[in-house]
Amino acid sequence: MKSTPSTDNTPGSNKIKRRTLLGGAATAAVVLVQTAFGKMVQRAVPEAALKSLIDPTHTPGTPPGKVGTRSPFEKPVKKASDISSRTPLQDLYGMLTPSDLHFERNHAGVPEIDPSQHKLVLHGMVNKPMVFTLADLKRFPSVSRICFIECSGNYRGGREDLSPQEIAGLTSQSEWTGVMLATLFREVGVKSGATWFLAEGSDAAVMTRSVPVAKGWEDAMVVYAQNGEAIRPEQGYPFRLLLPGWEGNTSVKWLRRIELSDQPFMTREETSKYTEPVAGGKIRQFSFVMDARSIITFPAYPVHVERGWIEIRGLAWSGRGKIVTVEVSTDGGKHWQAAKLQEPVLDKAHTYFRYLWQWNGEETVIMSRAVDETGYTQPFLRQLKEVRGTAGGYHFNPVTGWHIRRDGDVVLQPDSGT
Amino acid sequence: MKSTPSTDNTPGSNKIKRRTLLGGAATAAVVLVQTAFGKMVQRAVPEAALKSLIDPTHTPGTPPGKVGTRSPFEKPVKKASDISSRTPLQDLYGMLTPSDLHFERNHAGVPEIDPSQHKLVLHGMVNKPMVFTLADLKRFPSVSRICFIECSGNYRGGREDLSPQEIAGLTSQSEWTGVMLATLFREVGVKSGATWFLAEGSDAAVMTRSVPVAKGWEDAMVVYAQNGEAIRPEQGYPFRLLLPGWEGNTSVKWLRRIELSDQPFMTREETSKYTEPVAGGKIRQFSFVMDARSIITFPAYPVHVERGWIEIRGLAWSGRGKIVTVEVSTDGGKHWQAAKLQEPVLDKAHTYFRYLWQWNGEETVIMSRAVDETGYTQPFLRQLKEVRGTAGGYHFNPVTGWHIRRDGDVVLQPDSGT
Repeated sequence: MKSTPSTDNTPGSNKIKRRTLLGGAATAAVVLVQTAFGKMVQRAVPEAALKSLIDPTHTPGTPPGKVGTRSPFEKPVKKASDISSRTPLQDLYGMLTPSDLHFERNHAGVPEIDPSQHKLVLHGMVNKPMVFTLADLKRFPSVSRICFIECSGNYRGGREDLSPQEIAGLTSQSEWTGVMLATLFREVGVKSGATWFLAEGSDAAVMTRSVPVAKGWEDAMVVYAQNGEAIRPEQGYPFRLLLPGWEGNTSVKWLRRIELSDQPFMTREETSKYTEPVAGGKIRQFSFVMDARSIITFPAYPVHVERGWIEIRGLAWSGRGKIVTVEVSTDGGKHWQAAKLQEPVLDKAHTYFRYLWQWNGEETVIMSRAVDETGYTQPFLRQLKEVRGTAGGYHFNPVTGWHIRRDGDVVLQPDSGT
Repeated sequence: MKSTPSTDNTPGSNKIKRRTLLGGAATAAVVLVQTAFGKMVQRAVPEAALKSLIDPTHTPGTPPGKVGTRSPFEKPVKKASDISSRTPLQDLYGMLTPSDLHFERNHAGVPEIDPSQHKLVLHGMVNKPMVFTLADLKRFPSVSRICFIECSGNYRGGREDLSPQEIAGLTSQSEWTGVMLATLFREVGVKSGATWFLAEGSDAAVMTRSVPVAKGWEDAMVVYAQNGEAIRPEQGYPFRLLLPGWEGNTSVKWLRRIELSDQPFMTREETSKYTEPVAGGKIRQFSFVMDARSIITFPAYPVHVERGWIEIRGLAWSGRGKIVTVEVSTDGGKHWQAAKLQEPVLDKAHTYFRYLWQWNGEETVIMSRAVDETGYTQPFLRQLKEVRGTAGGYHFNPVTGWHIRRDGDVVLQPDSGT
């Protein structure tokens, strides 16, 4: 807070001005108000309230600048380990993730790339192998789309003291802009026998994944912009592959090479990693699509709530299309009600949901489950365990339950669901 | 660029790995490719290209962090004066504006506000005057919407050397989250005779504007979040009024007071400012709604283009609803073709448009004009001058033409339109 009042705007003159503006309300008395939202308002009325303000109007503020900043009172951060950092879902509102809070999952850190030196090679089973600079890619017809990217390892559980960020913070959403991979495919002339392509990154892990060519024709993109500006280094600057709805690892960052082939390349990241057990003791490979999931982000650990009206809020998403329904239970799964979905509900995108609930102060468990347009319903932990034989691993999307204690503390229900 | 190669990923071993991965392409020769996009690609094929890369794969990158950063190669900035800073529209992609590049128009700078001390007073012609903290507002049912905010003084012209940022950079778009003002109106019980309300900010200008109550019931909000996180200080932290589609000045920032009345308050900012001349020598007051407008942001001054395929790109928006059509002319206004609008096209929102054009190298003028769902068509400068008798001022939304010179230089056509 700056401390020098300007001379023509002293506290005294300002007070008079405010009194004038307040007009008829200046004589109002203190009242206690019972409202539809219960104990929300038991405060003084205007005149008294204005007097109690620490009044920023006495001091000229900071002039306009070249780049804005966060308020010093707001310090959202990702939770970072050596290999990943997780979006603070519990601190966010709406469907977008600020670019600097987008989750990271890196296999050898974030490379520093000079965009004027970076190129994308497109070769293999094509008629005309070609090389594209960033400037080349920007000349092509462009497309923007809002969609999520989620790491297929996006699950933690088994303890009470986990926040949404820790449980499911490896998903984030941006508006991405770039060129359709189909446009580049037409440019090089993909041969008819080509059924897979290899995507290779420029990081020190030389990240490589095999992707069916059909996905390339369907909705894959090479994106160079994120939320209006150049894509951030942590998300693949100067450009990345974007496979909407598929496990994040396949949307190869710092993309430098795409090779067309008639078979998958069986890279490390699709054999030793990114596979998961399924029924019959078998291992599932190339499980690309992220299944529907939802999580209540408020109220959630470590929030403390009070009895009365609570707007339950959260995110739902599916790699198979649009979210159709999010059901919320406030009695541990006995009854379910439809939450409101924030429009626009987009394809393969985080959808913000809300459900207004009056908590009576009794101990309970609240939870949400998502249904997507294919009819798929988000499973309970028990159901996933039955099929997988584990309580975690890749593509683990169980219903998350929050246990609300009588004292208002909210903790994770480690074994959610009925 | 870091300089220490890791021992198990030396240039030599890496080269072998790359050769292996390249497979059949390793023997490909240099070719010149003529494509649908003309001279876009006349480069070497993969193997040679890979060799020439400054290869970031030899060095482990930066580990995941708590907050991301821009690439050091990307430095978008607002153009700032003492009273405003303008969004660099020509550097952006898609419909969103990064929060730190959102335009500012301040009347006494950005106040530093402690959110725990800040309150909103709602009083005047209401049944129950009330005071709300930020925490109170967050407890109410919330809504998110993506829309633009535009300053009604968003116009500059008359010279060739103006960029989109300078001509129209006082408009930006965010996803806003907060509570409907109608919800707060119901909470305090607005009296039937109330037809106007005063919105007052906490800046040192004590910004005040009168707003018809009908707008409050229709779609006004008090918003505390922007693009997923807490609203930025420059946009009104900890909360602002949001009047979708109306001149930005009425979306009072750092909002601290709303007073209901049966008449407008005739504040300085609606009498001495924010009025404009119209036909018959009269002055128009309370001209709230921002009319439909569009601007081509690429190609635009100071870009240089080359003959061949060019994707013309830009933004269109209207304070009266959705954009229905954006027409593009590439021959100085003789013929017009419909541009592609990027879905989702939202109400009172920036809509990104694109039009693929093949420039033959001849001198010409390109321009765009927006049509909104009310049927309103963006006017030419000449038409605005006829009505207003000026070549600028508030609510000035003329068609912007870009003169493309034979040498590929692009400059503003100062007297755009036919």
